[in-house]
Amino acid sequence: MLRVLVYDNQTSNLEEMTDPKQVLTAISDTQKTIWVDLTKPSQEEAKLLEEGFHFHAIAVESALKEGERPKFYSYGNYSFLLMEATAASNKGSVVKLSQFSAFISKNYLVTVHQKDVNFIEDTINTIKSEPELLNRGVGFLLYNLLDGLIANYFPILDKIDNKLKTIEERIFQRPNQQVLNEIFKLRQEINQMRKSVSNNLDVLSLMMRHDSMQSSEENRMYLMDLYDHLMHLLDMIDMYHDMVFTSMDAYLSSVSNNMNNIMKVLTAITTIMMPLTVITGIYGMNFDMPEFHWTYGYVWALTLMAVSVIAMTLFLRSRKWL
Amino acid sequence: MLRVLVYDNQTSNLEEMTDPKQVLTAISDTQKTIWVDLTKPSQEEAKLLEEGFHFHAIAVESALKEGERPKFYSYGNYSFLLMEATAASNKGSVVKLSQFSAFISKNYLVTVHQKDVNFIEDTINTIKSEPELLNRGVGFLLYNLLDGLIANYFPILDKIDNKLKTIEERIFQRPNQQVLNEIFKLRQEINQMRKSVSNNLDVLSLMMRHDSMQSSEENRMYLMDLYDHLMHLLDMIDMYHDMVFTSMDAYLSSVSNNMNNIMKVLTAITTIMMPLTVITGIYGMNFDMPEFHWTYGYVWALTLMAVSVIAMTLFLRSRKWL
Amino acid sequence: MLRVLVYDNQTSNLEEMTDPKQVLTAISDTQKTIWVDLTKPSQEEAKLLEEGFHFHAIAVESALKEGERPKFYSYGNYSFLLMEATAASNKGSVVKLSQFSAFISKNYLVTVHQKDVNFIEDTINTIKSEPELLNRGVGFLLYNLLDGLIANYFPILDKIDNKLKTIEERIFQRPNQQVLNEIFKLRQEINQMRKSVSNNLDVLSLMMRHDSMQSSEENRMYLMDLYDHLMHLLDMIDMYHDMVFTSMDAYLSSVSNNMNNIMKVLTAITTIMMPLTVITGIYGMNFDMPEFHWTYGYVWALTLMAVSVIAMTLFLRSRKWL
Amino acid sequence: MLRVLVYDNQTSNLEEMTDPKQVLTAISDTQKTIWVDLTKPSQEEAKLLEEGFHFHAIAVESALKEGERPKFYSYGNYSFLLMEATAASNKGSVVKLSQFSAFISKNYLVTVHQKDVNFIEDTINTIKSEPELLNRGVGFLLYNLLDGLIANYFPILDKIDNKLKTIEERIFQRPNQQVLNEIFKLRQEINQMRKSVSNNLDVLSLMMRHDSMQSSEENRMYLMDLYDHLMHLLDMIDMYHDMVFTSMDAYLSSVSNNMNNIMKVLTAITTIMMPLTVITGIYGMNFDMPEFHWTYGYVWALTLMAVSVIAMTLFLRSRKWL
Amino acid sequence: MLRVLVYDNQTSNLEEMTDPKQVLTAISDTQKTIWVDLTKPSQEEAKLLEEGFHFHAIAVESALKEGERPKFYSYGNYSFLLMEATAASNKGSVVKLSQFSAFISKNYLVTVHQKDVNFIEDTINTIKSEPELLNRGVGFLLYNLLDGLIANYFPILDKIDNKLKTIEERIFQRPNQQVLNEIFKLRQEINQMRKSVSNNLDVLSLMMRHDSMQSSEENRMYLMDLYDHLMHLLDMIDMYHDMVFTSMDAYLSSVSNNMNNIMKVLTAITTIMMPLTVITGIYGMNFDMPEFHWTYGYVWALTLMAVSVIAMTLFLRSRKWL
Ligand SMILES: [Mg+2]
Ligand SMILES: [Mg+2]
Ligand SMILES: [Mg+2]
Ligand SMILES: [Mg+2]
Ligand SMILES: [Mg+2]
Ligand SMILES: [Mg+2]
Ligand SMILES: [Mg+2]
Ligand SMILES: [Mg+2]
Ligand SMILES: [Mg+2]
Ligand SMILES: [Mg+2]
Ligand SMILES: [Mg+2]
Ligand SMILES: [Mg+2]
Ligand SMILES: [Mg+2]
Ligand SMILES: [Mg+2]
Ligand SMILES: [Mg+2]
Ligand SMILES: [Mg+2]
Ligand SMILES: [Mg+2]
Ligand SMILES: [Mg+2]
Ligand SMILES: [Mg+2]
Ligand SMILES: [Mg+2]
Ligand SMILES: [Mg+2]
Ligand SMILES: [Mg+2]
Ligand SMILES: [Mg+2]
Ligand SMILES: [Mg+2]
Ligand SMILES: [Mg+2]
Ligand SMILES: [Mg+2]
Ligand SMILES: [Mg+2]
Ligand SMILES: [Mg+2]
Ligand SMILES: [Mg+2]
Ligand SMILES: [Mg+2]
Ligand SMILES: [Mg+2]
Repeated sequence: MLRVLVYDNQTSNLEEMTDPKQVLTAISDTQKTIWVDLTKPSQEEAKLLEEGFHFHAIAVESALKEGERPKFYSYGNYSFLLMEATAASNKGSVVKLSQFSAFISKNYLVTVHQKDVNFIEDTINTIKSEPELLNRGVGFLLYNLLDGLIANYFPILDKIDNKLKTIEERIFQRPNQQVLNEIFKLRQEINQMRKSVSNNLDVLSLMMRHDSMQSSEENRMYLMDLYDHLMHLLDMIDMYHDMVFTSMDAYLSSVSNNMNNIMKVLTAITTIMMPLTVITGIYGMNFDMPEFHWTYGYVWALTLMAVSVIAMTLFLRSRKWL
Repeated sequence: MLRVLVYDNQTSNLEEMTDPKQVLTAISDTQKTIWVDLTKPSQEEAKLLEEGFHFHAIAVESALKEGERPKFYSYGNYSFLLMEATAASNKGSVVKLSQFSAFISKNYLVTVHQKDVNFIEDTINTIKSEPELLNRGVGFLLYNLLDGLIANYFPILDKIDNKLKTIEERIFQRPNQQVLNEIFKLRQEINQMRKSVSNNLDVLSLMMRHDSMQSSEENRMYLMDLYDHLMHLLDMIDMYHDMVFTSMDAYLSSVSNNMNNIMKVLTAITTIMMPLTVITGIYGMNFDMPEFHWTYGYVWALTLMAVSVIAMTLFLRSRKWL
Repeated sequence: MLRVLVYDNQTSNLEEMTDPKQVLTAISDTQKTIWVDLTKPSQEEAKLLEEGFHFHAIAVESALKEGERPKFYSYGNYSFLLMEATAASNKGSVVKLSQFSAFISKNYLVTVHQKDVNFIEDTINTIKSEPELLNRGVGFLLYNLLDGLIANYFPILDKIDNKLKTIEERIFQRPNQQVLNEIFKLRQEINQMRKSVSNNLDVLSLMMRHDSMQSSEENRMYLMDLYDHLMHLLDMIDMYHDMVFTSMDAYLSSVSNNMNNIMKVLTAITTIMMPLTVITGIYGMNFDMPEFHWTYGYVWALTLMAVSVIAMTLFLRSRKWL
Repeated sequence: MLRVLVYDNQTSNLEEMTDPKQVLTAISDTQKTIWVDLTKPSQEEAKLLEEGFHFHAIAVESALKEGERPKFYSYGNYSFLLMEATAASNKGSVVKLSQFSAFISKNYLVTVHQKDVNFIEDTINTIKSEPELLNRGVGFLLYNLLDGLIANYFPILDKIDNKLKTIEERIFQRPNQQVLNEIFKLRQEINQMRKSVSNNLDVLSLMMRHDSMQSSEENRMYLMDLYDHLMHLLDMIDMYHDMVFTSMDAYLSSVSNNMNNIMKVLTAITTIMMPLTVITGIYGMNFDMPEFHWTYGYVWALTLMAVSVIAMTLFLRSRKWL
Repeated sequence: MLRVLVYDNQTSNLEEMTDPKQVLTAISDTQKTIWVDLTKPSQEEAKLLEEGFHFHAIAVESALKEGERPKFYSYGNYSFLLMEATAASNKGSVVKLSQFSAFISKNYLVTVHQKDVNFIEDTINTIKSEPELLNRGVGFLLYNLLDGLIANYFPILDKIDNKLKTIEERIFQRPNQQVLNEIFKLRQEINQMRKSVSNNLDVLSLMMRHDSMQSSEENRMYLMDLYDHLMHLLDMIDMYHDMVFTSMDAYLSSVSNNMNNIMKVLTAITTIMMPLTVITGIYGMNFDMPEFHWTYGYVWALTLMAVSVIAMTLFLRSRKWL
């Protein structure tokens, strides 16, 4: 789908266009700030990039293909930016990644993405309600989009937080293999998210160091703000990474704790019962023992057994195993 | 709350102001050194930053919002500094963070914070008792504030030290799951504190490398002193980090030690009692055995059992399991 | 085997040569773009490198020997590149490495390799079907070859992925020593592959920073694309590296889980049976016990045993060990 | 305590001074090389630093306070150096740190330390016996002192080596909790020492890169020699660090080995004795069994038991558990 | 032992000298390329370095002392190089280090070493058989020696490889404490070797970056080749490092596997035998049970026991513990 917003810096007029030819004419007018958005571009719309805007073949290929690494290339009069974005809703796993590309020129911006991303809609609404914001140029437009892209990572952290809390509870109630598998899965997703943020950060640094982005002090401020947000994300991810490892340590220690309790019970049973077996064994021998002739021989044997049980119980208590 | 101290470098006179308009007039007089402090600023006081002092919107937003990352931005004629501070008193957890912002200009300093921080009060008192110190300029004022901010970290390390000692004692007395959870919590808090100090350090380095901070040799010395204090904090945190890991190793080994002791008792009981069971079993068989006809048959059986107990005890002793 | 392709930039004519002398004449014509490929060079063909093209002895030695590290050397008017390549088919292990060398001059390229590598054939076919591509020069030729070399790594990642899935299934069904050995082997192969990709990356970076490679903007774009592919490979290898470690953790936890189950059964059997042994022991003693004279004495004893079994079963149930 | 050595470069005369005023006069004579040492300076002597030599307040504070981090500050015509030193003798723990400060000027050196350090005495003796060495200037004096400071670390490594040997022996004889605690303590001390050496190294590098230290080629050589010694220390500490971790691994494996032996004995006892209990149990049943009427019924039962013992022993032998 | 080779670049004549005075005369003739080798220098020969060649005292001390760290110092008209070498044959341990020093001047090279090193002899033979090689100057001589020094590391890797294979076999046959100790020892030796190669590499990099070494393109090529060999060594050492850690993991898992097998047998014996004990216990009770009056009472009891054995065996089989 092709959407075009053309803003006239002199008249402060915002216009929507649909005809590609009209767009190509508009971009040659440096008094205009133009945003072209391509959502899931059709083959015809895709052709526009290479044949209409004359963007470099390698950049266009990256923009249209999924599974590319974040990158920033500069081509003389325009730059190409590719970042990883996160889709808003996802069921099974926590993290779900897509990709967002932008061709950045002096007076126009072309964005390309295969998935619907909410921040496109948000930015369109912002601009329509206050078109004068585009007086600040293409840099401001890009800042708004990337700010939305980065903001999308934070709800994922909330999900991770929730998952961690559920896991923690289950560890102390029922530390079974299934919890451990969920810990492993979460660990992998946090790693994946760390890589995604870290790669976006690398690309943002690259962009910040590039001349075209340092033309205005304003732009530099915007990029530094985005940089701070990504660094803040990394700090939080590192914290969750630590917490997942703590969960695993807690799981292992909970399992080993259960094992200890089993061993304690086994030892307690054996320690209390075995002497009884020996005592009954002795009076089960077929010798003609004097005790058999005592009036209270049976009582004596039972007393002996009771004493043994009490002694052993006290011993186990002294070791805190009972 | 708005507090303003105005120092006249020529008359060495210190004056307190309360009217914002008066303040905005004062800052244009370069013969004066001015400190404006905003504690939990009201909406009206907050407006002063952008509309009165004309600070950049992004910086003002960072100063007023909580949960920002430490940063240092330079805007031509003034700079913006944001650092993590630690609040003085806290019950449940060891570390409690807030944030401290400063707009640094040639002749005036504006500080913003959402929480009461003790070093503000301390610096006000220092200046009131010896106003001439402000002859050294805004840099000295900032140094005093940051010195207080950094000094606040050290009592936290004392708390960590105390917690570690309590934990250590409990590990060798009662190594239960609860101690382990406290170790995990402390580990996380140390990590959090490390990140906080490390981020402040990054920002301080950034500030040290900035031109505006290298105007006077005096300033550079002050900043290097702060840098050393933060590095010293990091060294100490690294040491406590090591100690927490040692605690965890000690816990695990203490648990495994207990397990070994349980196994030893189980083995000892089984080793001593089982042969007795066999002996009593033999003389419990319903054969017409010769021993039944011996005068001392019963004594013989008991002797046999005593010998078995002694032999097994000696065997266990030789293995040091008893 | 010697194969030579000579392209005339003016006539757009592609010619194949076989006579080494003719080749040496052709390379002095800067209007021509020439590719010389040496597959498993004979001693005579090998001599051509040092004596015909006058390449440096150290570079030639590296190109002809197996087991060299990836490297990039620049010798004034030509450069030497050595990269690790992966052979296409392999049975026992996942990764199988060979080596690919290239001497890069302004208008000709000499490639040397001891193993048949599929991307040579692919590039030859591409050129033969569209010779005009060589108008883009030697850089484009090299880009095509290295693109093929890097693409060869991806099928190996698929194999690793398959192996990991098989291993994962077996871990939860039969976690024996053999699975563990396969995990160890896979871990080692992933490490080996990481080193290989990482070394190729180092060399590519070196090449990118070299003047001769920055002559045209076009070349820089090609190299950056290759760089991105290698970085993407590294990201994926890091992910598999994480997954192998998770497999090992899962294995260990699965083994420990089995151990716990064994201990639970041992404890259950002992806990239920031992009290029975004591009860039968008591009524096996040769005292004249009142119970022996009861009408339902035997039933009483059996009831006592049934109660004991039920009590112990409930106890084990309460601990979730049964 | 104040000690002053004044060397006249022209007359080669070495003089000792005690009057602070005389010292302050002497340092203005650039023909003289002067060394002022302050051991545990009294308040009056301490004042000399700021008021007599006019050193910077921050540097003086660092020199007089304990617990500072190694640092190197340059103040125009003099530099301030602070390094960690190790005291020579110590009982309980292996490492014991103090601090050594030096104010370095063109023609005079002022050293400050709170603890008696042997290398001060050594350097005084060297100079008194061969005063001409001071022709090489303040740099040579400093080199001698720091060489002594660094040499003090090596005996500590010997102590660590001895401790490690004692620990290793005890691990295989009696791997109890106490050995483990000593390993933990040693690990912490090695970490502490690593940090100390590493911090000194950082400061030395800083000093080496400073202009004032590069005035003479001779000075640069001396500093590089000190740098090599510290790097050598780090290499050795890294080795001991590895060895402590190996000790811990050995301890854990020794404990687990003991556990295995206990389990083997438990299993052996149970495996051999249990069948006997069953056999005696069978012939203890009150049925009228045919065996009771055999002439050699008792012998038969004993033979059965002997066969069972032999069979089980062979089984355990085959598994190498006996 | 002093050995001197003097090569005349004009006459291509190679001469051996023995008189130190003659040597000192020869080196002033820049038309000659001279190599002086000192193997285990006598005190008199050692004096030659400082007094004859006037090398710096610190460098000479390093060259004559054992236990120095690899280093590269430049002294105006000559440089000093110290590298770690490996002695060819060694019994007990795998790695055995010595040290090799070289003073490098424009037209002469002085090498010093305390141990006989094979590559000295090899280089002497190479030169004697083809003296013209010395036309390439001192750099080529040094390259030949260092190439030999580095080549000596590779046989050590073969030894490590053999040891690892032996260890691996024993782990699965007899995983006892002794194998573990050998793994620990090998791990330490690999660490030591890594440090040695890494330190040599640091020094080589230092040398490569030094002006005197970049005089000729030829020299730079030689050094880059040596650099590649050392990097290749590091890659291989890293691989063996990984393999040693895998060995340790395999050992631990093999021990834990054995433990599991022991527990399985213990559980199996207990599970099968305990019910039998209970059955015999029941019929050993002195009640007047109906079974005693059955004709096939005894057979009934034995059948009951057989059924119990079969049931328990099937249960154990279902759990795969038998
Ligand atoms: Mg990465
Ligand atoms: Mg990264
Ligand atoms: Mg980070
Ligand atoms: Mg971080
Ligand atoms: Mg960070
Ligand atoms: Mg960690
Ligand atoms: Mg950080
Ligand atoms: Mg650090
Ligand atoms: Mg540090
Ligand atoms: Mg640190
Ligand atoms: Mg560590
Ligand atoms: Mg670890
Ligand atoms: Mg690597
Ligand atoms: Mg690498
Ligand atoms: Mg990576
Ligand atoms: Mg990467
Ligand atoms: Mg990684
Ligand atoms: Mg990891
Ligand atoms: Mg680990
Ligand atoms: Mg671990
Ligand atoms: Mg450190
Ligand atoms: Mg350090
Ligand atoms: Mg080191
Ligand atoms: Mg080192
Ligand atoms: Mg480790
Ligand atoms: Mg190291
Ligand atoms: Mg190193
Ligand atoms: Mg390396
Ligand atoms: Mg490497
Ligand atoms: Mg490496
Ligand atoms: Mg490692």
